[in-house]
Amino acid sequence: MGTSPDAPASAGQLASQLLGAMAYGELSAFGRLSTDSRYAPTLHDRAVLAKIAVGAYGNFALLNGRLSEMGTDPEEAMLPFQRAFDHFHERTRPGDWFESVMKAYVIDTVSSDFYRTIAGFLDPGTQRLVEQVASPDQATEVLRVLLRRALSDDPRLASRLALWGRRLVGEALTQAQRTGLEHPLLGPLLRGGGDARAKVRRLTGELAEKHAHRMAGLGLAA
Amino acid sequence: MGTSPDAPASAGQLASQLLGAMAYGELSAFGRLSTDSRYAPTLHDRAVLAKIAVGAYGNFALLNGRLSEMGTDPEEAMLPFQRAFDHFHERTRPGDWFESVMKAYVIDTVSSDFYRTIAGFLDPGTQRLVEQVASPDQATEVLRVLLRRALSDDPRLASRLALWGRRLVGEALTQAQRTGLEHPLLGPLLRGGGDARAKVRRLTGELAEKHAHRMAGLGLAA
Repeated sequence: MGTSPDAPASAGQLASQLLGAMAYGELSAFGRLSTDSRYAPTLHDRAVLAKIAVGAYGNFALLNGRLSEMGTDPEEAMLPFQRAFDHFHERTRPGDWFESVMKAYVIDTVSSDFYRTIAGFLDPGTQRLVEQVASPDQATEVLRVLLRRALSDDPRLASRLALWGRRLVGEALTQAQRTGLEHPLLGPLLRGGGDARAKVRRLTGELAEKHAHRMAGLGLAA
Repeated sequence: MGTSPDAPASAGQLASQLLGAMAYGELSAFGRLSTDSRYAPTLHDRAVLAKIAVGAYGNFALLNGRLSEMGTDPEEAMLPFQRAFDHFHERTRPGDWFESVMKAYVIDTVSSDFYRTIAGFLDPGTQRLVEQVASPDQATEVLRVLLRRALSDDPRLASRLALWGRRLVGEALTQAQRTGLEHPLLGPLLRGGGDARAKVRRLTGELAEKHAHRMAGLGLAA
């Protein structure tokens, strides 16, 4: 927990840290998405968001299972990340249904990009699991369709959701940087010398760029 | 919706009403359980309640699928029951984690008894589905184990949870009576003459007795 990126963690430790962060992320996404689902405008939409929450639980269960297989207590692996994720959620409470859907979409996509980058430094087994959990999937597509529909039904939503998207990605990247620097997760990225903060800035720049591309795909200014 | 039990609904209508009530019950249980899961004392307990919520979603999906197969719009079948369920949940907000677990257990068991009684008057296909969804299962057992553990860890919980259990079953049976009398669901039970209210009282008496038996199994006064 107090380990700085200068003290390189073993590959196994890094893998369990990454999977612990992802597991807590999925478990907290499950809780938030399912709570938000209650504010859906129709029972159909509520069921759609509930199904996405169930998918997050499925990812959590997969990650949990892998951590146990690795001999790591899943609860111990998750705990160091709890405060940062909870803090992120506290700071980004959606004001309504559309903000909930946007938040689900932004978290899903930005965190997937982040996890896959980190996994690129790890063993092939961990990489495969991360790819499985953090690839754009049906849920991502369903969220995009919900957002497109909402934006076409009420074009005035665009400026509000664009602003909300910027707020979300800003908070998400701040958390990702903090998590990466406080825990040894970003260790492999930072190894080999050079300015650590500059490397982290480059990574967050790349994540922000991919996000901007997705927002443009929705017709929103990022 | 305004149909009184005196105007018998067809068997198909009754089946879709029962499945609609159950489907909304499962969808709302999903939302409440997953929200409550966030207040779990440990991440392990949180995951346990999340898994039970996921099971409720699975039941919802099954019921939803059957309604669609029957040519009934699931949303239309659920809507008439939304107010009563939401009202029940509003009136029974758990004050802490233990009350959440007790609530999950009481709703799971009492509503299953109720649905299975009603299904006894319906076609074998509907009966089978109701048995599948509303039988005591692993989730019921997990909740019972959580309650037993909590009561053995802190015996002072017993009087509070006993009181809470009485409150929950009182509200649940009031809702079940109201739902049964407002909608034609109790029609088959009430047919054949006799005092309708006395028959409903007998049914709720049976449900209360089974509940009391389960509370006694936990060492609680019902």
